[in-house]
Amino acid sequence: MEFTAKQIADFIGGRVEGNEQATVHTFAKIEEGKEGAITFLSNPKYTHYIYDTKASIVLINEDVELEKPVFATLIRVPNAYECVAKLMQMYAASLPQKNGIDPLAFVSKTAEIGKDAYIAPFAYVGDGVKIGDGSKIYPHVTIYDGCQIGKNVTIHAGAVIGADGFGFAPNQEGYDKIPQMGIVVIEDNVEIGANTCVDRSTMGQTVIHKGVKLDNLIQVAHNCEIGENTVMSAQAGMAGSTKIGSWCMVGGQAGFAGHIHVADKTMIGAQCGVISNTKGNGENLIGSPAMDPKDFFKAKALYRRLPDMYKEISALRKELEELKKK
Amino acid sequence: MEFTAKQIADFIGGRVEGNEQATVHTFAKIEEGKEGAITFLSNPKYTHYIYDTKASIVLINEDVELEKPVFATLIRVPNAYECVAKLMQMYAASLPQKNGIDPLAFVSKTAEIGKDAYIAPFAYVGDGVKIGDGSKIYPHVTIYDGCQIGKNVTIHAGAVIGADGFGFAPNQEGYDKIPQMGIVVIEDNVEIGANTCVDRSTMGQTVIHKGVKLDNLIQVAHNCEIGENTVMSAQAGMAGSTKIGSWCMVGGQAGFAGHIHVADKTMIGAQCGVISNTKGNGENLIGSPAMDPKDFFKAKALYRRLPDMYKEISALRKELEELKKK
Amino acid sequence: MEFTAKQIADFIGGRVEGNEQATVHTFAKIEEGKEGAITFLSNPKYTHYIYDTKASIVLINEDVELEKPVFATLIRVPNAYECVAKLMQMYAASLPQKNGIDPLAFVSKTAEIGKDAYIAPFAYVGDGVKIGDGSKIYPHVTIYDGCQIGKNVTIHAGAVIGADGFGFAPNQEGYDKIPQMGIVVIEDNVEIGANTCVDRSTMGQTVIHKGVKLDNLIQVAHNCEIGENTVMSAQAGMAGSTKIGSWCMVGGQAGFAGHIHVADKTMIGAQCGVISNTKGNGENLIGSPAMDPKDFFKAKALYRRLPDMYKEISALRKELEELKKK
Repeated sequence: MEFTAKQIADFIGGRVEGNEQATVHTFAKIEEGKEGAITFLSNPKYTHYIYDTKASIVLINEDVELEKPVFATLIRVPNAYECVAKLMQMYAASLPQKNGIDPLAFVSKTAEIGKDAYIAPFAYVGDGVKIGDGSKIYPHVTIYDGCQIGKNVTIHAGAVIGADGFGFAPNQEGYDKIPQMGIVVIEDNVEIGANTCVDRSTMGQTVIHKGVKLDNLIQVAHNCEIGENTVMSAQAGMAGSTKIGSWCMVGGQAGFAGHIHVADKTMIGAQCGVISNTKGNGENLIGSPAMDPKDFFKAKALYRRLPDMYKEISALRKELEELKKK
Repeated sequence: MEFTAKQIADFIGGRVEGNEQATVHTFAKIEEGKEGAITFLSNPKYTHYIYDTKASIVLINEDVELEKPVFATLIRVPNAYECVAKLMQMYAASLPQKNGIDPLAFVSKTAEIGKDAYIAPFAYVGDGVKIGDGSKIYPHVTIYDGCQIGKNVTIHAGAVIGADGFGFAPNQEGYDKIPQMGIVVIEDNVEIGANTCVDRSTMGQTVIHKGVKLDNLIQVAHNCEIGENTVMSAQAGMAGSTKIGSWCMVGGQAGFAGHIHVADKTMIGAQCGVISNTKGNGENLIGSPAMDPKDFFKAKALYRRLPDMYKEISALRKELEELKKK
Repeated sequence: MEFTAKQIADFIGGRVEGNEQATVHTFAKIEEGKEGAITFLSNPKYTHYIYDTKASIVLINEDVELEKPVFATLIRVPNAYECVAKLMQMYAASLPQKNGIDPLAFVSKTAEIGKDAYIAPFAYVGDGVKIGDGSKIYPHVTIYDGCQIGKNVTIHAGAVIGADGFGFAPNQEGYDKIPQMGIVVIEDNVEIGANTCVDRSTMGQTVIHKGVKLDNLIQVAHNCEIGENTVMSAQAGMAGSTKIGSWCMVGGQAGFAGHIHVADKTMIGAQCGVISNTKGNGENLIGSPAMDPKDFFKAKALYRRLPDMYKEISALRKELEELKKK
């Protein structure tokens, strides 16, 4: 499929500078632009690329002033980044979508699969599982018995939904397994990354509320709950029964102790260790154990100066002793 | 299957308060109790739920005094949590167990599979692998050639047993692979979580001793050894040739350097970084690098006060100089 | 296959002490040596094992002096560790190699698979994927549409190549997905560990350059680039658009913020948190946030002494006040 600069400008409400008939059929980063590609300039750091780019069309903010003529046709818009995202969404939606249950998938006879859902080769869908309309289950996903997946959910390759929670009771010779009899409920519009694990609850449900986005290799333990539209980066992990509020952002490799509550709109830094309930909505946390970022960076800066502080304390002691003698 | 309060009380040695003929067919958390469910009250924090719960039966400790009448039938027992675990185990054991080699599994002709073992669809069992009686291999588990799995072992979806250890020798142009010719041995009664990786050794064996429980997304490198009944939480990782003793508990996201020994019954906190041999049995460790928890929390508390300390040192210096002048 | 001490000594250029006709057919660690096995002594810590080992042949450095006679036949070499690695490589190369596309693999009709490549059961190779000559794709690997894999690449079980990068734009009700339209390019001689994830780029390519070795459970986000011959240990993670140079070594569980550059030959310690561009080639970094190791260990040592420092500051204050009064 090809589009002209004019067609694109009309679609996104932009203004063409240059050849209205310039055509594109693909997307590129500005530094890798080539003929037939559309790109965008949003970050001022990259402005110098626009004079050399081979891209046929560049989306650019209205207020950017250029110092030299450029080869590419420009489309002026209020927000180039938003426009390119919008174009990419339109383009992606126009591509043929995979659909239906692949003959190489395993789907239990007692599972229910919604309309226009896609179940890829080697996906495993256990007994009694429900998968809503339009959801996409990629290869090597395992959905254990009884779990419920909403509509327009995407689960990437290798993710495991509903494996047993990690529950054992010590006895004299070792550990007894505590059966994990609950399920996992994943609500609508959730995206779950590759090789991420969401464990079933001991009783009741582990719940991922609607709109949540989980990156790759994340651990969500039994009985956890993640609120609407919370976003979590790769390799983060939650211990059992912890509840995270809605609209939170969690950095990569962050960890949460068990049985704690994180308030709505909390921002958690990468590698953060959250060991107790957070104080309230909108808090920022960083470090392990988690602290306010201002305190964290102030203390961290002094941390590097600990040897100086130590020397100064010793000097003060020595000088004070001398003073006392007098 | 349904059970009456009387049947349950007789089975676990409890005493009924209320309707002996109340029946249940499922389990629920006390805050989610509904008719036909049995629940339990163990954590005093949750006592207020008992007055409203819709559960038909509540297991409750003998010594808990209630302030108002409750709708549910109570079964009084010495330890409600242990009793509910026992009931769940009984119930789980009564459910039909999956069994045998699923036609969608791949099992090498030279593998040996024990009696009553279950090999799920899309499990891969390589050449010469042995799997003991009663073991459960979930979907998308990969067991590389030659590895040995004991009896009553559970391996959750996506776990990888026996991939090559990470061994490379630098040459002038890059790295030569050091062939990983050993195997992985997993002893009886081990449980391995979803997407956890246990690498084969360079020579000899990587060994997971009996009763060990590994959570999800754990890394066990080549030539490691984990002692009996040690429990390790999600996303922990061990570098090569490290040996962890028996009855240890390892928190989530903890890491172990290579070639070190961790003594029996060591408790390792979440996100801990263990970089050298531990001192002896029963030690507690926390932080990265690992420290005694008392020291860790004392130092951590002062860490937040570093800016105050810094200011005080500067003030002392100034005042001392003034005093000297006099 | 069996080899005599003489054959091995001739092959690696060593000198036999003992029975030239001693034969071996396998490898063993020195502490686990048994008849028919060849082992090696390289680490002086293990010297005492040589007197008791049941191994038939021991490779040993020329300059090691033994205090007692040994049962095993010795082969004296300049570097025993290098020689055993060389022997293992030769032995491994002599074993029959798996080859071709297993009938239980899924390979899209539009994928191109090179000569002597191996595609294991339950591997998934998407539309338009290219896999070079001699590459090995283990079970449960997923390669999403359009990704390119070079020659002699090894991808271990459960790895996911080309899942969507983690890109979402907030709207008033939740998040819009930003389509991830790029690909992953993996160059020649790369090895990728079990359950590791390399995400496709938003536009353009996520690139793993030739000779890179990635351990298990690693996260490489969209638009990242890893330079030639860089080695990364298990559970490390890179956020989006970060570029790591060539010949770097990255420890386990280390994390990299997004959009940063790490220079060539940088050494990054385990659990390190790299949050900004590094300073130049050959730097060492440790801690989170990352610091120079000398500073790190000096500050860490004082960290444990913070309570002492605090007490001393209080004492100084008190004594100074007394002095002032006089």
